[in-house]
Amino acid sequence: MTSSDLFGALFVPDAMREATSDRAWIGAMLEFEAGLAAAEAQADVIPQAAAAAIASACEVGRFDAQALGRAARVAGNPAAPLVRALTEAVEGDAARFVHRGATSQDVMDTASMLVARRALALIAAELDAVAAACARLADEYRDTPTVARTLLQQALPTTFGLKAAGWLVAVLDAQRRLAAVPLAVGLGGAAGTLASVGGAGLRVLALLAERLDLEEPAVPWHTARARVAELGAALALAAGTLEKVAHDVTLLAQTEVAEVAEPAGDGRGGSSTLPHKRNPVRSVLAMACARRVRGEASILLGAMAQEHERGAGAWHAEWQALGGALAYTGGSAAAVREVLDGLEVRPERMRENLELTGGLVLAESVSVALGERIGRSEAHAIVEAASRRAVEAGRPFRDELLDDEAVSSLMSRDELDRALDLHRYAGEAAALVDRALERYRERV
Amino acid sequence: MTSSDLFGALFVPDAMREATSDRAWIGAMLEFEAGLAAAEAQADVIPQAAAAAIASACEVGRFDAQALGRAARVAGNPAAPLVRALTEAVEGDAARFVHRGATSQDVMDTASMLVARRALALIAAELDAVAAACARLADEYRDTPTVARTLLQQALPTTFGLKAAGWLVAVLDAQRRLAAVPLAVGLGGAAGTLASVGGAGLRVLALLAERLDLEEPAVPWHTARARVAELGAALALAAGTLEKVAHDVTLLAQTEVAEVAEPAGDGRGGSSTLPHKRNPVRSVLAMACARRVRGEASILLGAMAQEHERGAGAWHAEWQALGGALAYTGGSAAAVREVLDGLEVRPERMRENLELTGGLVLAESVSVALGERIGRSEAHAIVEAASRRAVEAGRPFRDELLDDEAVSSLMSRDELDRALDLHRYAGEAAALVDRALERYRERV
Amino acid sequence: MTSSDLFGALFVPDAMREATSDRAWIGAMLEFEAGLAAAEAQADVIPQAAAAAIASACEVGRFDAQALGRAARVAGNPAAPLVRALTEAVEGDAARFVHRGATSQDVMDTASMLVARRALALIAAELDAVAAACARLADEYRDTPTVARTLLQQALPTTFGLKAAGWLVAVLDAQRRLAAVPLAVGLGGAAGTLASVGGAGLRVLALLAERLDLEEPAVPWHTARARVAELGAALALAAGTLEKVAHDVTLLAQTEVAEVAEPAGDGRGGSSTLPHKRNPVRSVLAMACARRVRGEASILLGAMAQEHERGAGAWHAEWQALGGALAYTGGSAAAVREVLDGLEVRPERMRENLELTGGLVLAESVSVALGERIGRSEAHAIVEAASRRAVEAGRPFRDELLDDEAVSSLMSRDELDRALDLHRYAGEAAALVDRALERYRERV
Amino acid sequence: MTSSDLFGALFVPDAMREATSDRAWIGAMLEFEAGLAAAEAQADVIPQAAAAAIASACEVGRFDAQALGRAARVAGNPAAPLVRALTEAVEGDAARFVHRGATSQDVMDTASMLVARRALALIAAELDAVAAACARLADEYRDTPTVARTLLQQALPTTFGLKAAGWLVAVLDAQRRLAAVPLAVGLGGAAGTLASVGGAGLRVLALLAERLDLEEPAVPWHTARARVAELGAALALAAGTLEKVAHDVTLLAQTEVAEVAEPAGDGRGGSSTLPHKRNPVRSVLAMACARRVRGEASILLGAMAQEHERGAGAWHAEWQALGGALAYTGGSAAAVREVLDGLEVRPERMRENLELTGGLVLAESVSVALGERIGRSEAHAIVEAASRRAVEAGRPFRDELLDDEAVSSLMSRDELDRALDLHRYAGEAAALVDRALERYRERV
Repeated sequence: MTSSDLFGALFVPDAMREATSDRAWIGAMLEFEAGLAAAEAQADVIPQAAAAAIASACEVGRFDAQALGRAARVAGNPAAPLVRALTEAVEGDAARFVHRGATSQDVMDTASMLVARRALALIAAELDAVAAACARLADEYRDTPTVARTLLQQALPTTFGLKAAGWLVAVLDAQRRLAAVPLAVGLGGAAGTLASVGGAGLRVLALLAERLDLEEPAVPWHTARARVAELGAALALAAGTLEKVAHDVTLLAQTEVAEVAEPAGDGRGGSSTLPHKRNPVRSVLAMACARRVRGEASILLGAMAQEHERGAGAWHAEWQALGGALAYTGGSAAAVREVLDGLEVRPERMRENLELTGGLVLAESVSVALGERIGRSEAHAIVEAASRRAVEAGRPFRDELLDDEAVSSLMSRDELDRALDLHRYAGEAAALVDRALERYRERV
Repeated sequence: MTSSDLFGALFVPDAMREATSDRAWIGAMLEFEAGLAAAEAQADVIPQAAAAAIASACEVGRFDAQALGRAARVAGNPAAPLVRALTEAVEGDAARFVHRGATSQDVMDTASMLVARRALALIAAELDAVAAACARLADEYRDTPTVARTLLQQALPTTFGLKAAGWLVAVLDAQRRLAAVPLAVGLGGAAGTLASVGGAGLRVLALLAERLDLEEPAVPWHTARARVAELGAALALAAGTLEKVAHDVTLLAQTEVAEVAEPAGDGRGGSSTLPHKRNPVRSVLAMACARRVRGEASILLGAMAQEHERGAGAWHAEWQALGGALAYTGGSAAAVREVLDGLEVRPERMRENLELTGGLVLAESVSVALGERIGRSEAHAIVEAASRRAVEAGRPFRDELLDDEAVSSLMSRDELDRALDLHRYAGEAAALVDRALERYRERV
Repeated sequence: MTSSDLFGALFVPDAMREATSDRAWIGAMLEFEAGLAAAEAQADVIPQAAAAAIASACEVGRFDAQALGRAARVAGNPAAPLVRALTEAVEGDAARFVHRGATSQDVMDTASMLVARRALALIAAELDAVAAACARLADEYRDTPTVARTLLQQALPTTFGLKAAGWLVAVLDAQRRLAAVPLAVGLGGAAGTLASVGGAGLRVLALLAERLDLEEPAVPWHTARARVAELGAALALAAGTLEKVAHDVTLLAQTEVAEVAEPAGDGRGGSSTLPHKRNPVRSVLAMACARRVRGEASILLGAMAQEHERGAGAWHAEWQALGGALAYTGGSAAAVREVLDGLEVRPERMRENLELTGGLVLAESVSVALGERIGRSEAHAIVEAASRRAVEAGRPFRDELLDDEAVSSLMSRDELDRALDLHRYAGEAAALVDRALERYRERV
Repeated sequence: MTSSDLFGALFVPDAMREATSDRAWIGAMLEFEAGLAAAEAQADVIPQAAAAAIASACEVGRFDAQALGRAARVAGNPAAPLVRALTEAVEGDAARFVHRGATSQDVMDTASMLVARRALALIAAELDAVAAACARLADEYRDTPTVARTLLQQALPTTFGLKAAGWLVAVLDAQRRLAAVPLAVGLGGAAGTLASVGGAGLRVLALLAERLDLEEPAVPWHTARARVAELGAALALAAGTLEKVAHDVTLLAQTEVAEVAEPAGDGRGGSSTLPHKRNPVRSVLAMACARRVRGEASILLGAMAQEHERGAGAWHAEWQALGGALAYTGGSAAAVREVLDGLEVRPERMRENLELTGGLVLAESVSVALGERIGRSEAHAIVEAASRRAVEAGRPFRDELLDDEAVSSLMSRDELDRALDLHRYAGEAAALVDRALERYRERV
């Protein structure tokens, strides 16, 4: 009953919540039990008929999450009461073949991986859409001048396309990392020796992995938890990547900057008391989600030193941390997707902002041009002085430069104007956008 | 729908889950709105009748958490749709006085504090019971010799009472810290200036604080988030204190140590596949809870740098983090209380373990006695050599010492036996237990 | 040899680095040893002459940090080799009274507290200066209108004084929290029973606490680590408070906002390639420091469940974490102090920004005024529509309102102008500033 | 001057400290500058002679870390003063080609990757040695029975070889993950557009990547920080893997368990006050290191949302976090390598511990054998009852079973003894060891 719908529905789309719900966990546990029975039947460890009977009892609807949770306080995990309930639900003699040779941790670990797989598929779909939106923006605004900002100060020109290209490459990397985390079946029996499966342990392990389409581990991983922690880390990296995009959007959407705005509609972003605002609500939700993901990932990364053959507490802390990391990465991805689909981009405002400093954002360009003649340091000093005078006098930078003897002795007015041309000073931005788009196209 | 009952019921007792549930949050938000209306009526900002009408509409049952959560995606927080729904629920003209002068953050922040207060009361009750159990154990086993272990190695004698006294003092400190965190009302209006309350802002602030029995802040704390982070830290400190107790219990309950066992009953601690085990399940749950609390606290401590007059994301990440930190500290406290109430303590086994090294745990005692004669370093060297010989030869330490010329030339057999007397070497253990119990009694 | 000067000198002022240096730690350990000997002499446990001889050997300059560090790999902590080296350094018979009855953890724990106390004094001085600067700003700009921003969007008017007052109260709270953390002496002997001090353990404990001016704990706290973790939490809360100020400064200093600028001079904030920039360098350093403090605090909060009577690893992780948390909180405080001392504040730019939306930041004011006549919801709808039309048409908000029949039928032009008066809509800002300043004055 | 040698030398071997030292960072920055000049000369952006002059000035010995660190407070990073000092150090006209087209972040980011590469090579060598030691242990003790413990309770038999095999596979995975993190050159110029390199930006980027043997990124990654965070995560996963091994060793080395002991020698593990102890010091250091690595990794994972084209604070927090994560992962690996090389393994003690429960660790084996006849649940109930009677009466489990009518009616005495045979109940342990060793051999 800890708060789940009120905040859950705020941050996480329904499909993702469903994929990490009580129902999803119970379903995954049942999938393990049915799969185990089928594998054992195939390996002649239990009768085919028993496997069939077990499979037919594995219906999520039969089991009550709250009751299982309360009963779980006895054994310390929900697998134990589920197995008991399942055993009761199986008809006749087959009941004695339920959970044969497995231990509670096998159920939970395999279920974790199955829950993860489904949630990761939803995340991947959202990330695909985010990448597509980034690619569209990079392509459409490939040559749109905007200002690059370092330490939140206007620095010099870039293009909005290159901004989007940077997001794009980062999202592609996040996807690659998530896809690379191996999801393995968990089966070892109480001691990790597969002793209780009888002599067919290794065969059952292989068959079960194949059935559930999960990796077969070299050895049971009851207390080798990098598998779970690695997933947490990859989710945190994905969420952090999305947070960067959302953060940029909130900064670009500031009233004083106003270069982009989140798509409006459905009253979105309206404030209850400030009717004129257009809040970057989805970006804000995405950033909040990323913070939750990191909290969960820190639990997973801190839970690796599990004792002997089964962890005492660290293992138990993984379930919700993994579920939360999945759900909120999904929440973050969905929010960023909504932000970018239909993002209002305002090239004219970018242009205005570029002109805000009266040409000072091209100081580097002048400095470089001068530097070719007299060296970087000296050129830097001259331009810095001119910049300062321009700022202090509130005069256009160009005028200040034209009046500077050092400058005028070294550069013609034409050369100066070339150095002050915005478009000429976007460097390789267009080519870099193309590289990012090429990487995107190769992927899909 | 993210998993909540399955794992929630496993880790957190029902009362604590209820106190941090969707219903509790909605109730607390309504309490803010009713309280605000009453305060404003008292300050003549709105009519008395309006306040009464608003109060009577503030029934938790009217509002659907899931619907509010989904609607919250528009504004970015659940207060906005709740205020809308409440306004619709209020009869007649009074509707226009709902939420007068307040902003969404006022609702959420005050609700956070109200939710916290109720959950903290439950936690305090559990901690009281934990402290009482520690005090009982400290008192009952005040003089029971057991071995002190450093780096998990037997070191030298102490008493079980002193162990429990150490837990006790730590729990008292945790309670003190939790009780010291100020819980303040949140009211500032959209800009934190109370402008929209009209001229009566400060008076309404004071009246609302009084009504809700929360502290009145000097200035609105919309982006001064130490209040929330401090609560998270105090909860993490409490959970860490409980984790220490639970950790000690799991270590003392190890099959090879067996000095304590968690209370049995209701099949508790039984393993699904290993019928003979007596798992320290509640301790394990308590430790898992502590890990979650730390994850949540890290979110809160990382959420302090909120932008300008309202945070963009960091604030939004606080709600669940605070709720989770409260719920799981409660879960941890309840589990430790169950562990200590009825903890099986086995003095005879402690005695056996003390004898496991054939007297070596008294090496320091001999070393000190010798050191009084020849200095710490030399005594240490002699005793270390004798210890090594005893270990290598598998001989009792006493025999080895008696055969050592250096020792026999400096100490009589009686003196040696005094140095090897367990009871004599518990130092100030009993007096320290008394100090702890005195501190406990002073508190209650 | 891990990087310390290059980055250390960048982030942390020399005095603070010195207070948490190897030399400071060794000095604090020696202070423990000298203090212990003196206390034991006073309690007649060792001869007065021995205490004097020990005290005179306790010179920091004698001991080599690197050599101690390497030797420490044998015992696992630097106290062991230091005690050995100190024993060698003490002349004659007194050597055998060195470290009498203490264990390595006593040395390290007490040294931690002594290091903390000195570093906290430096932090307190910096925080005093930060508070003073905040108070000056709050006072000077008490009535200076500026815009309040929520989710980084302009919301409605406030004053710069109230911003500074918010920082001020938060800094005062951070100071209070740091001052409240009790710093206690650590003395328990190997088992925490004080056995090896002979019968005078409790008396020595009290005398040592008095001598070192540290709190006397009720029981030894070898594995009750909340003392250290609490310090870490209080430091993280202080650093987060400073980070908030620094974050606001970077946002207000953005080229497009430009309401404040960090003090210039010494080429500070100059970019190597962008001569015109005025980077908020000190704010950036302060924020980086806060991130490090949180990393260290997370180590301390995660290190509480230490085993039995001495932690195996968690304890060992505390030393650097505590030292780092102290040093970087100090770095953060110093940087923010430098930012605020001489902060350029630009009221005229604030005014310009306030006018950026053509009066829309006063939409709430109009909404409230209208709401008094027709209710909050309806007023909100009317104003929201007018706002939207103003934005779409690029027209001043006032004109749009004057043309609105609903508005003009309910409010006179004068009433409207009053509602659109910036100064009238700062609410209780001035009074809130006064409350903050009163709180500040009461403190000093 | 923050403490570095005292604790640095305790936790981190000299070579690893050197690889992450001030000197290593300065050297890596110079390597960037020399490499950049060489690449630009090759691309005809600057004269060959200038590149040669720059290269010859790039001597680490010329530069003072402390002075650079202090000077760095002006620009906010150490690259700026280093470039200035280097420019001064370059003879003649070549000085004006120093750092051509690059920005401070290019220097720092590339230097981070170069520092990482060297440190990772040292870590890899330590992990190789750890893996080799695990493989030796797995092989040597392939069939040595020991007890598997779950929740720290004896559960049922396994082999020590399988324990070591589990460590081995985890270490191989950690190595794979570290090796898979791409290390890329950083070069983008102030805006990430390569504008200031003139038209040859992309060519210089490719040539520099080739020269430094780093990956060429698709686009500059000034604010795409997953590269750094991913490294932090991979280090945390490696450190957590090592912590698991170290944790198991401390648990197995407990006085009451005593199945392994860390190698002695050089007085290692001796306690200053407890001469008989054999502390698992290296394991303890390894675990402390892992905690630091996690603290640093949390900083890196939390630093991804960097603003626009350069982060304001989050970037600055990366340098020490990365350096620390590398150094302490190295410290952890070195400590575990020392633990495993020469680990004392005591098969006879394992056997004694296996017999501690009078056969109860084979309860599952009996349960399975019975279950084949009457089903899992019923068999479990019978065996559980017999276990309980055995525990209560302090009688051997076998006797209790023989007296049980249900058991004796279903199993012969021979069948029972087979079920109670330790060696028969290690399941697939030996085969699993072989799988792990095969994986190891395939790797090397």
